[in-house]
Amino acid sequence: MAARSRVAPMLRRLERTGLTARCRLSPVQVPVSGRCIAAVSSRHFTACPQRNAKFTTEMYPDLKKDPRFAQLTEEHVKHFKDLLGSSAAVIDAVTDSSASEDIEPFNEDWMKKYRGHCKLVLKPGSTEEVSKILKYCNDNKLAVVPQGGNTGLVGGSVPVFDEIVINMSRMNQVRFFDEVSGTLVVDAGAILEVVDHFLAEKGYIFPLDLGAKGSCHVGGNVATNAGGLRLLRYGSLHGSVLGLEAVLPDGTIVDDLSRLRKNNTGYDLKQLFIGAEGTIGIITGVSINCPQRSQAMNVAFFGLESYEKAQQAFREAKSQLSEILSAFELMDRNSIALVDRVHGHKKPLEDEHPFYCLIETSGSNSEHDSEKLEAFLEDVMGKEIVTDGVVAQDETQIKALWAWREGIPEVSAHFGGVYKYDVSIPLKQLYELVDDARARINEAGLLGDTDEYPVVDVLGYGHMGDSNLHLNVAVRRYDAKVEKVLEPFVYEWIAKHQGSISAEHGLGIAKKKYIGYSRTDSMIGLMKQIKNLYDPNGIMNPYKYI
Amino acid sequence: MAARSRVAPMLRRLERTGLTARCRLSPVQVPVSGRCIAAVSSRHFTACPQRNAKFTTEMYPDLKKDPRFAQLTEEHVKHFKDLLGSSAAVIDAVTDSSASEDIEPFNEDWMKKYRGHCKLVLKPGSTEEVSKILKYCNDNKLAVVPQGGNTGLVGGSVPVFDEIVINMSRMNQVRFFDEVSGTLVVDAGAILEVVDHFLAEKGYIFPLDLGAKGSCHVGGNVATNAGGLRLLRYGSLHGSVLGLEAVLPDGTIVDDLSRLRKNNTGYDLKQLFIGAEGTIGIITGVSINCPQRSQAMNVAFFGLESYEKAQQAFREAKSQLSEILSAFELMDRNSIALVDRVHGHKKPLEDEHPFYCLIETSGSNSEHDSEKLEAFLEDVMGKEIVTDGVVAQDETQIKALWAWREGIPEVSAHFGGVYKYDVSIPLKQLYELVDDARARINEAGLLGDTDEYPVVDVLGYGHMGDSNLHLNVAVRRYDAKVEKVLEPFVYEWIAKHQGSISAEHGLGIAKKKYIGYSRTDSMIGLMKQIKNLYDPNGIMNPYKYI
Repeated sequence: MAARSRVAPMLRRLERTGLTARCRLSPVQVPVSGRCIAAVSSRHFTACPQRNAKFTTEMYPDLKKDPRFAQLTEEHVKHFKDLLGSSAAVIDAVTDSSASEDIEPFNEDWMKKYRGHCKLVLKPGSTEEVSKILKYCNDNKLAVVPQGGNTGLVGGSVPVFDEIVINMSRMNQVRFFDEVSGTLVVDAGAILEVVDHFLAEKGYIFPLDLGAKGSCHVGGNVATNAGGLRLLRYGSLHGSVLGLEAVLPDGTIVDDLSRLRKNNTGYDLKQLFIGAEGTIGIITGVSINCPQRSQAMNVAFFGLESYEKAQQAFREAKSQLSEILSAFELMDRNSIALVDRVHGHKKPLEDEHPFYCLIETSGSNSEHDSEKLEAFLEDVMGKEIVTDGVVAQDETQIKALWAWREGIPEVSAHFGGVYKYDVSIPLKQLYELVDDARARINEAGLLGDTDEYPVVDVLGYGHMGDSNLHLNVAVRRYDAKVEKVLEPFVYEWIAKHQGSISAEHGLGIAKKKYIGYSRTDSMIGLMKQIKNLYDPNGIMNPYKYI
Repeated sequence: MAARSRVAPMLRRLERTGLTARCRLSPVQVPVSGRCIAAVSSRHFTACPQRNAKFTTEMYPDLKKDPRFAQLTEEHVKHFKDLLGSSAAVIDAVTDSSASEDIEPFNEDWMKKYRGHCKLVLKPGSTEEVSKILKYCNDNKLAVVPQGGNTGLVGGSVPVFDEIVINMSRMNQVRFFDEVSGTLVVDAGAILEVVDHFLAEKGYIFPLDLGAKGSCHVGGNVATNAGGLRLLRYGSLHGSVLGLEAVLPDGTIVDDLSRLRKNNTGYDLKQLFIGAEGTIGIITGVSINCPQRSQAMNVAFFGLESYEKAQQAFREAKSQLSEILSAFELMDRNSIALVDRVHGHKKPLEDEHPFYCLIETSGSNSEHDSEKLEAFLEDVMGKEIVTDGVVAQDETQIKALWAWREGIPEVSAHFGGVYKYDVSIPLKQLYELVDDARARINEAGLLGDTDEYPVVDVLGYGHMGDSNLHLNVAVRRYDAKVEKVLEPFVYEWIAKHQGSISAEHGLGIAKKKYIGYSRTDSMIGLMKQIKNLYDPNGIMNPYKYI
């Protein structure tokens, strides 16, 4: 994707209109270090130093193994080895204790936050094998955890006790692609970035982008209803997924792999598996509608004096950039200050502003897009909605500007730890949560510059275009006093404002107990009905979700 | 929506490039009569002369009333009158035979094709009333038919026997609109066009457009997963609907009226109601994400020498027009010839072509859009993908060009009747069905110019951008010989090519028995499981769907 912005002519035009005195619209001058760029490509992925996480059973001592589940035996293991044939398809620490180390990457999440006691990993190579595995597990009351790239943030893809991991990485082929319609059918275990590269060669794009794209599986994306960076433009997976192939616990293959955009023949059952986090079945194949890849991309970064102005800027961007707007990201003063404090790079804008926004456009004609972006910036600066701004001149600068946004999760954890909340809030009230949380922490005397205070800073940022806020409380150490101030306050605040306690990360084990803040008892009851319908023995990804 | 195309400069440029000798790109010269324009606004809606349809029970003599259902009594009627209070909320032909005439519009579909024996119409004014009605009906085994604008094409919204009609027209208010995010919450009984006008004033658009928009309800659109004209651009309702409020047969209110674009907290149950055709509950409220309304619209109409070229043109349109492409419609030679034969207007293109396409663009900048369209047309003409074309100069001409596409359903029925198939087929094979059907009809000696032949013509047209074909067989009279040649041939053909026997019209009573051509027994079994879960007494819209 070539980045061809038109900063020079824009600057000239801005000089002529006399706006530059107030609005220093200049080419971005951020030094692009390896570290910053790495933050772009790794996004949520900050390295974790410790070797192994605590066992999840230690973190959640109240959790007891469901007595309905059987203990894995040698006979079970032999059955699976016979079934899957290949030695690469089974990692067995039940009968072979030397395999314990090999099994650890499947037991732990990438954040080293959750760790299970699994002793058997199965890697089926076909939908039929998945079906046979599940049928056997269901008949024998063996609990399982479906696992994709294991890149989730809520502990949904690793076991708690000794559930069998069914890892989908061997099912990783593109099954079908139609270059005229853009319909793609792919195995669930295909890696998102590999698939996106395949599509790029054909002039198409996967309608989802994530920091974890180098590791995450398409099947996992669908199972967690991943949101990510392209949602504003390409909508949710509930709209773009055309069909699914999945296996129910009893081995039934849900054969709904339609390649059609329109198919009104009965209940759209595939939708239940999108976002079900592997609790009612395992997705084995995905059919998805892929849009045309944009030829041109532009990024602008600007400062604003209030959240009210950020809302005005968003409204204008939607109106004026309309069909080419592909991202509208918000960052508060504290977020940018913390990235600055940790990385020390020159900031895109010299002065400090209460709020910053990053706008990305992508379209089929770079001249048109630049002209639209230029006119938009002139307009919002003329109306004093935006105080100051820069536009990236090339792909390196695009990455550098994104690094200020994408660096925030990493620097939030830099001082020792971070309390993270990924929430949806109606746009009007979106930022109020940050103000209110900061005020509470201040009132409790927990925030300060020296070591005696646990809290370093309170940050608010996120996908404003999707009403998705990330509230991060950066701390020097985890402290019960901070937790007490934040919880259940944050969840109660979300409930009061009709928000969602998990916008895009899902429930897993981390958010399971908070669902009541976003869903009524009646809705939770209806969800449990669905769970019981498809998984009456409860073997699918137990101890998590609803 | 202002129509501002740039035909004059484009013609000049084409003259300079020397393309005009072959490609007569000229302003459209279609006379715009009242009739043609009417066809645009009424779309699928051709008037039907007969007073009343045959009873559905006569057309389907094998259908027997489900013995589980109770007979309506005076006591039931009294209960509903007490419950709803207002006399406007109950039409009672059970105890008052003079109301029989008033009830007829609720008993019959607009095509006068299906007619029930209903004697009681209830018009609840609130979700609580819907809940109380359904609970009572469920407890007393009274079957019901939820009814929106009654504009469906498969008999899904009228009763078969004496089911109670629950008409949603009194619940028609906009509940909420956020001008920054574009989130709209509306009662299910609001009329689509009324809602779209409301949105137009705010600079937004409803992400769905239909011929029936002047009558159809938003709730009915969602219940039938309506596709329509904007799907190519704005995607399906499964993506744009943010939340639903619905009532289950036992009176449970499904309170899932989220206003958020991202909410990953449990199974997305609302999806089951989208396209369920009122068989598991009644939708009472809809929350939906509305896009920015486009400022500019352009329409081009061109002739091509083969379906292969039409596919190439679509591929180029997706690539070059990308984010502004809002419709790509296909019409074959026979379709346009029949519109010409019936209406006698001057055709947009003088010569006859085997295929025609209509392209619509909509975007935020009319100059940019015109430039893109112009470059696209130059390119496809230069590459000899398109043989000839015209571009609309103003809104009147846009409507006139659309009238050639939108007039096809009407003229198909002009000679006495029409066999209609609304199907999805993978794009590559889309048109083969029309060739194959025509060949079969020809071989059977059924197609000819004189009265002895039942078939006037075989037409293929539709939303090519969505792989949605309409196969119409225009006949002088309905004839068992024609039916025998067409069925099950068409359905078997669709099944063989992995298409859908109902792309956007749904199943209703008309397609119920054909679902097996698009769904496996296993999928149908899973669907029945859902039906039984939510509606164990089977009272919701019986005799239809799966």
